[in-house]
Amino acid sequence: MACRRKRPRLSANEEADGSADFDRFYFRAYGDISIHETMLGDTARTNSYRSAIFGSGAIKDKVILDVGAGTGILSVFCAQAGAKHVYAVEASSMAEQAKLVIKCNGVEDRVSVIQGKVEDIELPEMVDVIVSEWMGYLLVYEWMLSSIIFAREKWLKNNGVLFPNTASVFIAPLGDCEDLRDRLKFWEEMRPLYGVEMASLQAYARKCLTDVVHVQLVPPQNVQAHACQVCHINLKTVQEEDLSSVKGNFQFKCFGYSRVCGFVVWFDVTFPDHSQLSTSPYAEPTHWEQCIVYTKETQDVAQDTEITGTLELKPHRKVSRYVEVDLTYKFGNSEETHKQSYSMDEGAGS
Amino acid sequence: MACRRKRPRLSANEEADGSADFDRFYFRAYGDISIHETMLGDTARTNSYRSAIFGSGAIKDKVILDVGAGTGILSVFCAQAGAKHVYAVEASSMAEQAKLVIKCNGVEDRVSVIQGKVEDIELPEMVDVIVSEWMGYLLVYEWMLSSIIFAREKWLKNNGVLFPNTASVFIAPLGDCEDLRDRLKFWEEMRPLYGVEMASLQAYARKCLTDVVHVQLVPPQNVQAHACQVCHINLKTVQEEDLSSVKGNFQFKCFGYSRVCGFVVWFDVTFPDHSQLSTSPYAEPTHWEQCIVYTKETQDVAQDTEITGTLELKPHRKVSRYVEVDLTYKFGNSEETHKQSYSMDEGAGS
Repeated sequence: MACRRKRPRLSANEEADGSADFDRFYFRAYGDISIHETMLGDTARTNSYRSAIFGSGAIKDKVILDVGAGTGILSVFCAQAGAKHVYAVEASSMAEQAKLVIKCNGVEDRVSVIQGKVEDIELPEMVDVIVSEWMGYLLVYEWMLSSIIFAREKWLKNNGVLFPNTASVFIAPLGDCEDLRDRLKFWEEMRPLYGVEMASLQAYARKCLTDVVHVQLVPPQNVQAHACQVCHINLKTVQEEDLSSVKGNFQFKCFGYSRVCGFVVWFDVTFPDHSQLSTSPYAEPTHWEQCIVYTKETQDVAQDTEITGTLELKPHRKVSRYVEVDLTYKFGNSEETHKQSYSMDEGAGS
Repeated sequence: MACRRKRPRLSANEEADGSADFDRFYFRAYGDISIHETMLGDTARTNSYRSAIFGSGAIKDKVILDVGAGTGILSVFCAQAGAKHVYAVEASSMAEQAKLVIKCNGVEDRVSVIQGKVEDIELPEMVDVIVSEWMGYLLVYEWMLSSIIFAREKWLKNNGVLFPNTASVFIAPLGDCEDLRDRLKFWEEMRPLYGVEMASLQAYARKCLTDVVHVQLVPPQNVQAHACQVCHINLKTVQEEDLSSVKGNFQFKCFGYSRVCGFVVWFDVTFPDHSQLSTSPYAEPTHWEQCIVYTKETQDVAQDTEITGTLELKPHRKVSRYVEVDLTYKFGNSEETHKQSYSMDEGAGS
């Protein structure tokens, strides 16, 4: 089954501040069926969780908290893998559907669905394991990771474990970007097509396209160097304050001659059995695809050209569930360090 | 050149009331490059305007108002077709780009770009012709037609003409809907795929999918009767109050045996030279594609079964640039008249 569609972007009033107003939108999106088709139609994602839950001894006879349970599938996996009890917490109206799913699978004696935000609900006991699929584009989009930290602090036993238990962000230079080139060249095609010269719009198009994060699949041959892990998050120890700025340095040597026009960013998570869910261009495609940020100008690089820089992800200043990306980069021994910022919000960049 | 993408949906805070707040979003969307790629990449759309402007005697030596000029391409067409002067009014930041396009095409002496909403700006003279591409999904989505009426009342001479000058909405029954069937069947596939029974979600999925308007291309063979024109708008005479409810009756006889699971809705507009831009399933595809509304239950129909009903389009009660669809329909001599409402908003239904 092919991955049907991308995870919908969230929409919000620009002036919302990431609190109550925005959360209504957030949970409304997860109340719609389409987002669940996307997530369950993504077999790489769902099977990674399934095999980690079944393949690990960490679930059997344990008490589990499923944060953002959605349709309840991860809770059913846990019950099937022998969990003692599962608390399936879901804020959206999908909680009602999860109850039906739990019942149809004959595990209602061991799975309790609780409708509410994990920040608001009460559980009758501490849990051994937290299971959650909280990852957004660029890993952090939606910033649901905050809720996992909250749940860990309040409900996870000291020796408890998390599924996933680590998350990493990777970056690599993008060579020879056909899509950007095609989208800029489009404006040269208006004259032969309609007899109207519109190449003057290329500069504006480039500005629009280099201001935002693009979600799309990147063919492996367009990755121009060994990727660099810019940050590694241990879910057991990460603190809320660490999320105000998720950042790190990168350094790579380009494989060969190419024209670099941006960077590709993706993430991996790992589970307690050391299995992995990767959204890399080299892995089975997922609905997260990869994220691209274009540089303002393309740069020809020769073999072994070194590119160094920093990547920083932080909550968007206007809507805190969105992401702002700050990038610096330098080619070889150039004196010049380029700085660029990108927005990942609801509308642009697809 | 294939149509690249759909016109983006607008996003807005649920509580916005269609006035200042929402308009900021609206014009921001048109300030981004992607929407203009969509519109100009739609050759059926753009060539219809081009041939109507060039093929009609109504432009030469006339004063033109282009409402929502965008990149300015329709204004350039008018100048090329011999307009005496064109006022290109554009509220979004795209106005700056339109100025460059006008200049590059050597028509800056005959085209003035005015940044502002047509409701706010002043022109030095009355105009002979209003040109505008104001149509949204279901014809009325975005409700930009209000701005055309405003512009007509304030700036069009008594004997002036409009491009387009008429608009019609059509409806037809949709037979044998694979997409809906596939999306519902999806939930049966979870058991073989993941060992989790999720067919119980079908009812909820059906509810979600039958609450909203879907934008997609409908193959002509899925149209199950001769379409019915439910309303016809004369742009010269339509009044603002007519837009509070765009509605009409329909009646068709089904071609043959089929399973009807909804209706397909589309629109046509015509130009003063009687040429047409059609978004019908039988015409060249456009970025508007077609709109589908699903019925709560499918209905088997035999050849010549009559379906009668009413279609009503009105501003959404929460966000007035969105659309609410009220549909009633009856099969054959059945006593039962079905009533159903749909929302066309920013998120769902793609």
